[in-house]
Amino acid sequence: MSVTIIFQPLGRKGRLPRGTTLLEAARRLGVGLSGVCGGLGACGTCRVVIPPESRTALSPPTSTETERLDAAELGRGARLACQAQVLADLHVLIPPDSLTASQRVQVEGRQTPVAPDPEVVAHDLELDPASLADPRSDAARLREKLGRAVRFDLAVLQTTPSRLREWGWRARAAVRGDEVVALLPPDTPLLGLAVDLGTTKLAGYLLDLETGRTLASAGEMNPQLAYGEDVMARITYGMQEPEGARRLQEAAARGIGDLLQRLCTEAEAQTDQVVEAVVVGNTAMHHLFLGLPTRSLGLAPYVPVESGPLEVRAREVGLDLAPGAVIYLLPNVAGFVGADHVAALLATRTNEADVPTLLLDIGTNTEICLAANGRLLSCSTASGPAFEGAHIRFGMRAAPGAIERVRLIGGEVFWEAVEGRPPVGICGSGILDAVAELRRAGVLGDRGRMAADPRVHPGQYGPEFALVPAETSGLGQAITLSRKDVSEVQLAKAAIAAGWQVLLEEAGIQEDEVQRVIVAGAFGTYIDTKGAVFIGMLPAIPLERFEQVGNVAGTGARMALVSQAERERAARIARRVEYVELTVHPNFQERFTQALRLTGNK
Amino acid sequence: MSVTIIFQPLGRKGRLPRGTTLLEAARRLGVGLSGVCGGLGACGTCRVVIPPESRTALSPPTSTETERLDAAELGRGARLACQAQVLADLHVLIPPDSLTASQRVQVEGRQTPVAPDPEVVAHDLELDPASLADPRSDAARLREKLGRAVRFDLAVLQTTPSRLREWGWRARAAVRGDEVVALLPPDTPLLGLAVDLGTTKLAGYLLDLETGRTLASAGEMNPQLAYGEDVMARITYGMQEPEGARRLQEAAARGIGDLLQRLCTEAEAQTDQVVEAVVVGNTAMHHLFLGLPTRSLGLAPYVPVESGPLEVRAREVGLDLAPGAVIYLLPNVAGFVGADHVAALLATRTNEADVPTLLLDIGTNTEICLAANGRLLSCSTASGPAFEGAHIRFGMRAAPGAIERVRLIGGEVFWEAVEGRPPVGICGSGILDAVAELRRAGVLGDRGRMAADPRVHPGQYGPEFALVPAETSGLGQAITLSRKDVSEVQLAKAAIAAGWQVLLEEAGIQEDEVQRVIVAGAFGTYIDTKGAVFIGMLPAIPLERFEQVGNVAGTGARMALVSQAERERAARIARRVEYVELTVHPNFQERFTQALRLTGNK
Repeated sequence: MSVTIIFQPLGRKGRLPRGTTLLEAARRLGVGLSGVCGGLGACGTCRVVIPPESRTALSPPTSTETERLDAAELGRGARLACQAQVLADLHVLIPPDSLTASQRVQVEGRQTPVAPDPEVVAHDLELDPASLADPRSDAARLREKLGRAVRFDLAVLQTTPSRLREWGWRARAAVRGDEVVALLPPDTPLLGLAVDLGTTKLAGYLLDLETGRTLASAGEMNPQLAYGEDVMARITYGMQEPEGARRLQEAAARGIGDLLQRLCTEAEAQTDQVVEAVVVGNTAMHHLFLGLPTRSLGLAPYVPVESGPLEVRAREVGLDLAPGAVIYLLPNVAGFVGADHVAALLATRTNEADVPTLLLDIGTNTEICLAANGRLLSCSTASGPAFEGAHIRFGMRAAPGAIERVRLIGGEVFWEAVEGRPPVGICGSGILDAVAELRRAGVLGDRGRMAADPRVHPGQYGPEFALVPAETSGLGQAITLSRKDVSEVQLAKAAIAAGWQVLLEEAGIQEDEVQRVIVAGAFGTYIDTKGAVFIGMLPAIPLERFEQVGNVAGTGARMALVSQAERERAARIARRVEYVELTVHPNFQERFTQALRLTGNK
Repeated sequence: MSVTIIFQPLGRKGRLPRGTTLLEAARRLGVGLSGVCGGLGACGTCRVVIPPESRTALSPPTSTETERLDAAELGRGARLACQAQVLADLHVLIPPDSLTASQRVQVEGRQTPVAPDPEVVAHDLELDPASLADPRSDAARLREKLGRAVRFDLAVLQTTPSRLREWGWRARAAVRGDEVVALLPPDTPLLGLAVDLGTTKLAGYLLDLETGRTLASAGEMNPQLAYGEDVMARITYGMQEPEGARRLQEAAARGIGDLLQRLCTEAEAQTDQVVEAVVVGNTAMHHLFLGLPTRSLGLAPYVPVESGPLEVRAREVGLDLAPGAVIYLLPNVAGFVGADHVAALLATRTNEADVPTLLLDIGTNTEICLAANGRLLSCSTASGPAFEGAHIRFGMRAAPGAIERVRLIGGEVFWEAVEGRPPVGICGSGILDAVAELRRAGVLGDRGRMAADPRVHPGQYGPEFALVPAETSGLGQAITLSRKDVSEVQLAKAAIAAGWQVLLEEAGIQEDEVQRVIVAGAFGTYIDTKGAVFIGMLPAIPLERFEQVGNVAGTGARMALVSQAERERAARIARRVEYVELTVHPNFQERFTQALRLTGNK
């Protein structure tokens, strides 16, 4: 009897005999899970985490596990992969430190390019102690020294008396507008948390609010992955499972909470120093994180509950920051154009462009903005998960061993895998490269058909091109690109190309008039622009007009975290954006059909 | 073996043999618990509620009980008194409908004497349905029709999409300042809840916010009684028991929640129509309800955490009103002069008095305000629980069978009991009457000593005067007033008299210059003013200068509920009040010692 195992965050899936250990399963499926001692249960490096729903799908913890893992870890679903035997279908999460090399999560940049002007400011206060001659309330005493009629958040008041007395009637008050959101020991730096809450990955940044300096940055997989790979799967899960929406909300909060712990450890800070947070994400992630219903996001006309900027108490959504800390959510534009897009526009200043400029953030949904003739036109296009490695036979995320570059030189295939490991799969940039190179070499026709070639063989899903033979592969079998894989890429790139083409038509701009193309996001940063232009995914314009900017949504979140002016700018951007709904646009279908062709643009 | 049973809300306590049923115990202790069928378990009228800590002190529910009480009731600790046998010391709560006649709780008045100007106002909206041509967010759509840049509370947003669609894109928005706190079906009246959260009793009022009309009013015992009779006992419980503060918070919220249910049933309304609440209480009740620490309230210099007005989300303190409803808490003045005093000043307009005016709210702590020469001087004096029936041998609250009036005519004792029942004890007004009459008749000297009299006999606690002989008593034994009881009254009245005397001295006013004395609160409304003046508890001025006004704290809460102007007025009053700390006042001790005398003022 065999069972299905899915390893996250790599997204690798396979069927293996019941009774296999998780470590053995990981090895057979080419998952880079640590296991220094070779499966003796001696090193503890193969620690994995099992989501609640999958816990009964494993053999009970062995005595080795109960020795090596403490009760809290076991309670959170931690197991040793070399000990746990698979009894039924399950999901396994590999924490970053158990991967043979950390998953590549796009987090970069130590500085935010704005002058700090934070919503929350610090005031150091020295109070007169209470006495029978002066029995005013603690709050009145603080108010007097602040010299302002501030309000106090209830959670702050609940700890005020003990803290003031412990600190000898001295304190630093964190004041947000007219409200005190935290009391800290005098001179404690006030920190802020910026989060890009992606469907797949979370990127987090811990900043000093006063200096605007980034103290730490880190990435984590979105724990919601256990409930569905893409936005629509999660919306469905949230609607159909009785506790689905709550689980998704808690998973997002848990992911951000874990990220914050890592950031605080790195920066040697305490979570209660974090007095403000900014979270950006697509509209579905925004809604799922806030516990807002997503039913109307999942059905035409794809209507969000709220598109304006929102402020919520961190504690109300399960985040443990300073007692009264607020989370500021940047505005969304539409059901499929979210705050992450607004943050990307903010960070890249696309809205201020004085020449026709395209911004593309390529993912499962690709958000595109055209700034031209004083307008900001945005759309979202369903490019599918092909570039994240899903729906591709040997597809995987950009983890170690993923082929990320492919070249055909003199009829021979050259490739490069992440961290130089033996290849175990192929990630988005590699898939794009492979298609472009095969097209260039004439192995693929413009409709994606595979020509006769010594390396093309019939396979389960139509003809397959062998990229890596079994001997060289880290998988013990050949890594191939199939006709079906090529179709997936055609669908993805057609969706993207039809998107920017419709926007150009709306604005009355020709393709070659575009002066600047900003490609954002983790995948976009690694792709070979030349190949993308060659197959018609990006406009056929000189390569020097392209910029690959990395995670600008995270940068935008950080800018909004430290600057009130940037928040106002983001709100103005969101109001200015004209949303173009592609699904009902008269030209979209035709553009899409045309764009299925692998053009061979130079 | 005998066990101690305490019946609340009457506050009656006694020792009885282990194995006694609760109904039998109630009868032996003179508690007016219903039992129409005579203890056969057939009528269910003897239903009582056992607080969680006392539940194991009873025999397990019998089959009769599991038949008559449903699982939810049993889960809340409901029992039939005729079935449950006492195994150990315990507290028993008698719900109002199980008392032979409802406890007298001071709730009155159908109107608030102010023009409505509420914080929350209604807007009926008719929206254009969402479509692919107009996919704006639900919130944007509401904002457009409101014509204002409102924010939405998160809990409101969480139910917005389903409700808007259910109601055909029509809704009534409840808007508080710039925030939407509830969405209701079109034309639903917006309601408000005003609560006087007393140490012993809760008084609640349900109002129509638009008209200011009181739709329903009701009283309940404060469920915190299970954790201590007075403020200090509860502060101690909250500090010393591990979960004490949380239990007290939850008990207060539960009490208000139950009261709200009754009010809504009476007014045929839903709790989610309640979009705003005002709660007043003494400073300790205010803190315990909000989960604020009370340690510094219980020790000199008796410092509150917050004395200013406070706004908290109802859901944050466990009250289930409209999703985003806010509770507004009127300001406190000091550790022992709370928002209930401010509300009483507001309702009586004492602050606007143009002649020297005293306001007294008599209770375990008596708050007194003197308005004179443009000043407002307030103090709190520890008058003790004697007038609530505690620490008095046959003392009880003003429940049926409580002697509330006593007269000595021609050497014969005449008395009147609540609802004309056979007397089972004596309540505050009766105790005050008895002392005044015995003093008038010369049975008591000015120091409280009992003269020789045919009805005075030696008792366990010194000489006792027989008010009701055993034959007439509903207790099966004589009801007496002991020398010790008289001492308790002397202590109480001395504390009160010393309080207003110190205030008069502070303001430089003579006793006979006081033109108006407002006596507030449940006890104050029932006392015989003449007797109180006679023993020196109230100033020796003509009786026509006294007013007995009932629960003006509740009236003040209702005024603040429906009027923003009244909230501002209350804040101004609280700032104007000069707090006089009696415990350190140079004259207090001397005035107190003098005031122990039963003066015999005419």
